[in-house]
Amino acid sequence: MRAVDIIIDKRNGKELSREALQFLIHGYVGGEIPDYQIAAWAMAVFFQGMSPKEIAALTEVMLTSGGRMDLSGISGPFVDKHSTGGVGDKTSLIVAPLIASLGIKDPMMSGRALGYTGGTLDKLEAIPGYKTTLEQQEFREILGMIGYAMTGQTRDMVPADRLLYALRDVSGTVESIPLITASILSKKVAEGADALVLDVKYGSGAFMKDPKAAEKLARSLVNTGAVMGKQIIALLTDMDEPLGNMVGNFLEVEESLDCLEGKGPTDLMEVSLELAARMAVLGAKAADAVEGREVCEAALASGKPRYLFLENIRCQGGDPKQILEMRGKYRSAFSTEIRAAKDGYISRIDAGKVGHAGILLGVGRNRTEDQVSPTAGVQFHKKRGDRIALGDRIMTIWAGHEACLAAAIRQLEDAVEYAETPPAPRKLVLQEITQEATGA
Amino acid sequence: MRAVDIIIDKRNGKELSREALQFLIHGYVGGEIPDYQIAAWAMAVFFQGMSPKEIAALTEVMLTSGGRMDLSGISGPFVDKHSTGGVGDKTSLIVAPLIASLGIKDPMMSGRALGYTGGTLDKLEAIPGYKTTLEQQEFREILGMIGYAMTGQTRDMVPADRLLYALRDVSGTVESIPLITASILSKKVAEGADALVLDVKYGSGAFMKDPKAAEKLARSLVNTGAVMGKQIIALLTDMDEPLGNMVGNFLEVEESLDCLEGKGPTDLMEVSLELAARMAVLGAKAADAVEGREVCEAALASGKPRYLFLENIRCQGGDPKQILEMRGKYRSAFSTEIRAAKDGYISRIDAGKVGHAGILLGVGRNRTEDQVSPTAGVQFHKKRGDRIALGDRIMTIWAGHEACLAAAIRQLEDAVEYAETPPAPRKLVLQEITQEATGA
Repeated sequence: MRAVDIIIDKRNGKELSREALQFLIHGYVGGEIPDYQIAAWAMAVFFQGMSPKEIAALTEVMLTSGGRMDLSGISGPFVDKHSTGGVGDKTSLIVAPLIASLGIKDPMMSGRALGYTGGTLDKLEAIPGYKTTLEQQEFREILGMIGYAMTGQTRDMVPADRLLYALRDVSGTVESIPLITASILSKKVAEGADALVLDVKYGSGAFMKDPKAAEKLARSLVNTGAVMGKQIIALLTDMDEPLGNMVGNFLEVEESLDCLEGKGPTDLMEVSLELAARMAVLGAKAADAVEGREVCEAALASGKPRYLFLENIRCQGGDPKQILEMRGKYRSAFSTEIRAAKDGYISRIDAGKVGHAGILLGVGRNRTEDQVSPTAGVQFHKKRGDRIALGDRIMTIWAGHEACLAAAIRQLEDAVEYAETPPAPRKLVLQEITQEATGA
Repeated sequence: MRAVDIIIDKRNGKELSREALQFLIHGYVGGEIPDYQIAAWAMAVFFQGMSPKEIAALTEVMLTSGGRMDLSGISGPFVDKHSTGGVGDKTSLIVAPLIASLGIKDPMMSGRALGYTGGTLDKLEAIPGYKTTLEQQEFREILGMIGYAMTGQTRDMVPADRLLYALRDVSGTVESIPLITASILSKKVAEGADALVLDVKYGSGAFMKDPKAAEKLARSLVNTGAVMGKQIIALLTDMDEPLGNMVGNFLEVEESLDCLEGKGPTDLMEVSLELAARMAVLGAKAADAVEGREVCEAALASGKPRYLFLENIRCQGGDPKQILEMRGKYRSAFSTEIRAAKDGYISRIDAGKVGHAGILLGVGRNRTEDQVSPTAGVQFHKKRGDRIALGDRIMTIWAGHEACLAAAIRQLEDAVEYAETPPAPRKLVLQEITQEATGA
């Protein structure tokens, strides 16, 4: 077998065998196949696509490029969620304790912020002492005890994905549905999830701007899951406006706690409950999404998810008492406000622009080696559809340096669009894509 | 400017600016842009193509990646030919002295055999003492004196092409019309040619199997030449059967000499004269191809091209007297014959299979580092359309090792196809493509 022949086959639109994919991917991880061949192959995949069978085989060879989480001896069901990334998206922090309170285990392996979308690990690390690199044994213990554990991708877990992602990032091949699918699923299967709810976002603050592209990715994930024997439900959700009222690392931890106390903003609660409802179904705690939602709302009302959230912080190295005391206070030194430029209604707050402003403030990062700030961010006092008068406070923003603040103000002012009449309502959850519905 | 953004632009079908192409190509040659980005870009070019303007810009930035031949002080016109490669294709050895005898200068920079197609440099090196790496000063002197000189690509001449070709070869991006176009034209402009006749071959022994693909390449070359202000005429010629009766390095030198003595096989003479006729037109020695052909036939009859051929050998380090003595004798040690398997007609001799057999015999090479044999090869006694009886001698073959001979026999036997009736005639020159005709 020669790598160049495999590249040419894909270039010519052929379906690659599992053996060919294994030869490429394991050869790449082993250093026998050079990055220029993998880059050319990835570009050929971008143009020619892959069949569900091929994507499943790619996922499996990526998976077997390294170790996987050993969850033996821990009772399931193991259900996780994954989001394609958004601005203000802290649903993982909310749904994990929520479904854990139902008796479902969530072994959550998360990522960091890159570009304008936030990362769960960065948010967790805003909690002083919180450890996001757990050894397998610690991960198992916390998962067994609390019902969920949160960790970053360890070095030996799916090394093919780490290498491939870094190469795609510099070779213009990030936007390939089959490669995105294999990247997501290989990590989720490696962490030990049996079933998965996917939050595939679209809009200015999402990786996919367009609902059609998001639907394509969702179908690819759901269909590939079917080939691999993994239950997957995908929701297409709106990411044109930041989710919730907080964008920032510690700010989002606070807002997650608000949600678990029943005080969360409507949009964030809605998306979190819709995701959790499907996880409840996949974990066999509800017959359908409607019942799942009832079960989740009842669980929230019981206070148990909040308790598990604080217990998880304790188990992973943080101090729950300290966190409760830091609420409303743990903020960067420099602060300012953005006020309404006119009377009327807010017709839109552009999540993409808020995300880019977040990078300037120190919430997110442009390059993987950049540091993020735990305490910088944006709090929204008004959002889409709210009536405003000239001078009303729309946002408060924080940053560690005055220059960062100044740089972000313009972007944030630009993010707010005004209208004289209230905007038409937008659906938060556009569509549900299930394995039954796609015939897979 | 970032390489990844240029890759993404091309991937998305945008026309790249000269600045972007220069940034990529000069950065690659300078070692600042890594091969994986160039490989991904090349694959994006494979799928998205390039406009004539873009190909011309790429050709020019490749050209300026290194030095070029300085022909100042030598009187022109400078006209060269280029073949996309074939089996038994020794037309360069014939047309160069032929048009030199008309007063046209041919500064010929040639390549080596790769795969089943032969290389002019390998044929020349079968002449004992013949030097194919000339310093610029030697090249100028021989060109001025004889009217043509033959050299390989020097290290500082179009380094971008050398690097890019090696990368394309291992990344599945050889078969890209824009990249082939820029590769050919950058070298031909660097050697100093003002005008060019292209022999674009199709058929089993050519790089392009199909006349349509060959036509596409021919039009790309002719159109790009127009943008660059270079006169180009392309001929589409048949390469389904080996050209002439000899396939082998010294064997082809001999057959070239036969042609210059008026004893060449019809097919080889026909293609050589058609090419030379166009070179005569581009060199302003004839008004049209018909007159060009008359002029070339008269020149051949004068014996001057044969004289120049032998003088060129002398100037480049060979011994003309020795060459004449070696004719018919300088052959590899092991030899055998292929005889007709039945009565009837030869309906086809598959050039591709002969080419592959040539690699086994030592005529060509699979990898650039392989050595070739000067004395191995195949001589055809019968060809397409010839009537044969069972047991008639069709080929004689030579190789330096018995094992090589044995390996090639089967391929060569397979290459011969039989019929009970004579095959329909095939056109050797299918089409002429000129800048006027394409409207460029």
